[in-house]
Amino acid sequence: MTTVPAIRFRGAGGTEVIEVGEIDVRDPGPGEVTVEIAAAGLNRADLLQRKGMYPAPPGAPADVPGLELAGAVVARGPGAGLFELGAPVMAIVGGGAMARRITVHERELAPVPRGVELTAAAAIPEAFLTAWDAMVAQARLGAGETVLVHAAASGVGTAALQIARAVGARAIATTRTAAKLAPLAAFGLAEGDGIVVEGGRFAQAVQARGGAHVILDAVGAAYFDENLRALAPRGRLVLIGTLGGGGGTPPPIGMMLGKRVTVIGTVMRARPLEEKIELARIATTRLVPLFERGLLAPVIDRVLPMTACADAHARMERDENVGKIVLRW
Amino acid sequence: MTTVPAIRFRGAGGTEVIEVGEIDVRDPGPGEVTVEIAAAGLNRADLLQRKGMYPAPPGAPADVPGLELAGAVVARGPGAGLFELGAPVMAIVGGGAMARRITVHERELAPVPRGVELTAAAAIPEAFLTAWDAMVAQARLGAGETVLVHAAASGVGTAALQIARAVGARAIATTRTAAKLAPLAAFGLAEGDGIVVEGGRFAQAVQARGGAHVILDAVGAAYFDENLRALAPRGRLVLIGTLGGGGGTPPPIGMMLGKRVTVIGTVMRARPLEEKIELARIATTRLVPLFERGLLAPVIDRVLPMTACADAHARMERDENVGKIVLRW
Repeated sequence: MTTVPAIRFRGAGGTEVIEVGEIDVRDPGPGEVTVEIAAAGLNRADLLQRKGMYPAPPGAPADVPGLELAGAVVARGPGAGLFELGAPVMAIVGGGAMARRITVHERELAPVPRGVELTAAAAIPEAFLTAWDAMVAQARLGAGETVLVHAAASGVGTAALQIARAVGARAIATTRTAAKLAPLAAFGLAEGDGIVVEGGRFAQAVQARGGAHVILDAVGAAYFDENLRALAPRGRLVLIGTLGGGGGTPPPIGMMLGKRVTVIGTVMRARPLEEKIELARIATTRLVPLFERGLLAPVIDRVLPMTACADAHARMERDENVGKIVLRW
Repeated sequence: MTTVPAIRFRGAGGTEVIEVGEIDVRDPGPGEVTVEIAAAGLNRADLLQRKGMYPAPPGAPADVPGLELAGAVVARGPGAGLFELGAPVMAIVGGGAMARRITVHERELAPVPRGVELTAAAAIPEAFLTAWDAMVAQARLGAGETVLVHAAASGVGTAALQIARAVGARAIATTRTAAKLAPLAAFGLAEGDGIVVEGGRFAQAVQARGGAHVILDAVGAAYFDENLRALAPRGRLVLIGTLGGGGGTPPPIGMMLGKRVTVIGTVMRARPLEEKIELARIATTRLVPLFERGLLAPVIDRVLPMTACADAHARMERDENVGKIVLRW
């Protein structure tokens, strides 16, 4: 057991509940390793957890946030031999990534791509695995198809645009802020394929561009009907968040049948070990090569010290970031 | 060109618009055959089409209903060699099955299973292919899983129960009429796994039985929320109809994410030729062997003469049938 510094939520509330405290990290058991964390990416789920709206899943610390990390292996348990001591690694975890160390199964880790700085690697796992898992693994986005990416300037959004380009798909992007569209050209968004959403409407603009075979959506109920209208026949809508809250209109079942759509609800955080391992395998075999070939790159809004965690939360809450906010020790 | 008797809808309305008229059937072109139809199954889509609520798809006659048929090959076009003249065949078509003859591509046909009477075979295609395509092909129902079958006494419902048994899945069945539950034991429904739906509620009863990995639903919006509640984690809801009409509550996106569900909208009638051919291939390679091994059997509510088509519509509209209503020439 080792005691290390960690971000802790002292109850539920605003950024005032964020403090730097300590946490006990267990020694690695069979097949496990301890990672000294260099940096952790910030996610909206951390903000929801801080507000008390998204409790940590079983097995994760209740009050230490952080769902993704990059760091170096500093201890190996019996039988753990996938990574050398000192190896740079990255991972998605159920929580606890905003501590100085964490102990996980070695198969939950992926190597940091060669050429990517350790701090920057903390911006990779959640964004790129969420986008890859949703668009490619689940919705089977393929070359020649079109994907509609909402909140395209977000961490997941900028990852989704790059992945779309890498797999040969065309992206159509929405933001609610016109100023956020211009930077998206760097991630492959073509002139004219950016849409500023006004009054919650975008389906007509998407259909004018041929419709979407796949939609990546974190808004939820408020966009549900428009998303179905924006889909091409046999399209796939992947729901990865409920940022828009509840409400909306009854589901348009007739349209869902007529277009023969598939709607997939998905969430990363609560997945069991075997699926976290599967994600690490995807990161290792599919994403790392794409990063190393220069086809993908982490998109970092800014890097802040872990002690400025409250500032990071405030920035994301103001919806000011383009790409990921990373917190480093 | 041959002129043959056919059921025709004289405009949209009640059963009074149904009349026996004639239709011209084209000679078979390359790869096509003409089938002399022995019998056709009645479907709710026929009733909707009669009411003017479900126009025939492109390529199908506008006013001759009938989506499935059994009959004998009576003419073959150039290059058509899959079936001998006189061979008993069955098929799903986009319309026109309630005529004495029809010309289709030979690859849209499946052989009638040995041991199944020609008239009875007309009860197979829509019910069994709809259930197989929805539950097995699309929702990947597998042995050891549980499927919830709504309207379980219907043609599709009784087919679904048999397919569930054949693939090693447990079925839970709902009906709105208690009297319809008892006959379902013959299709493998276990004692205690039948639920009479009252006030639109069934999720609690399904969860008390462990939840459903797959749900086959033709009701639509009115059941949407309860269906999601009844699903097990990672469950798949297949929507095949909107019998309950519109309305309902906004989609429970949070539950869809948390349970990581997949919702699939599907429809058979409007599928293009290549998919009709794929269905015929499934019928040939998967269903026919199961019928011939006695693991599946057509479920016939009653066989009526084609000239009693209006009576058949009325019976289905009163929701009195258990299994399929078949109309024979």
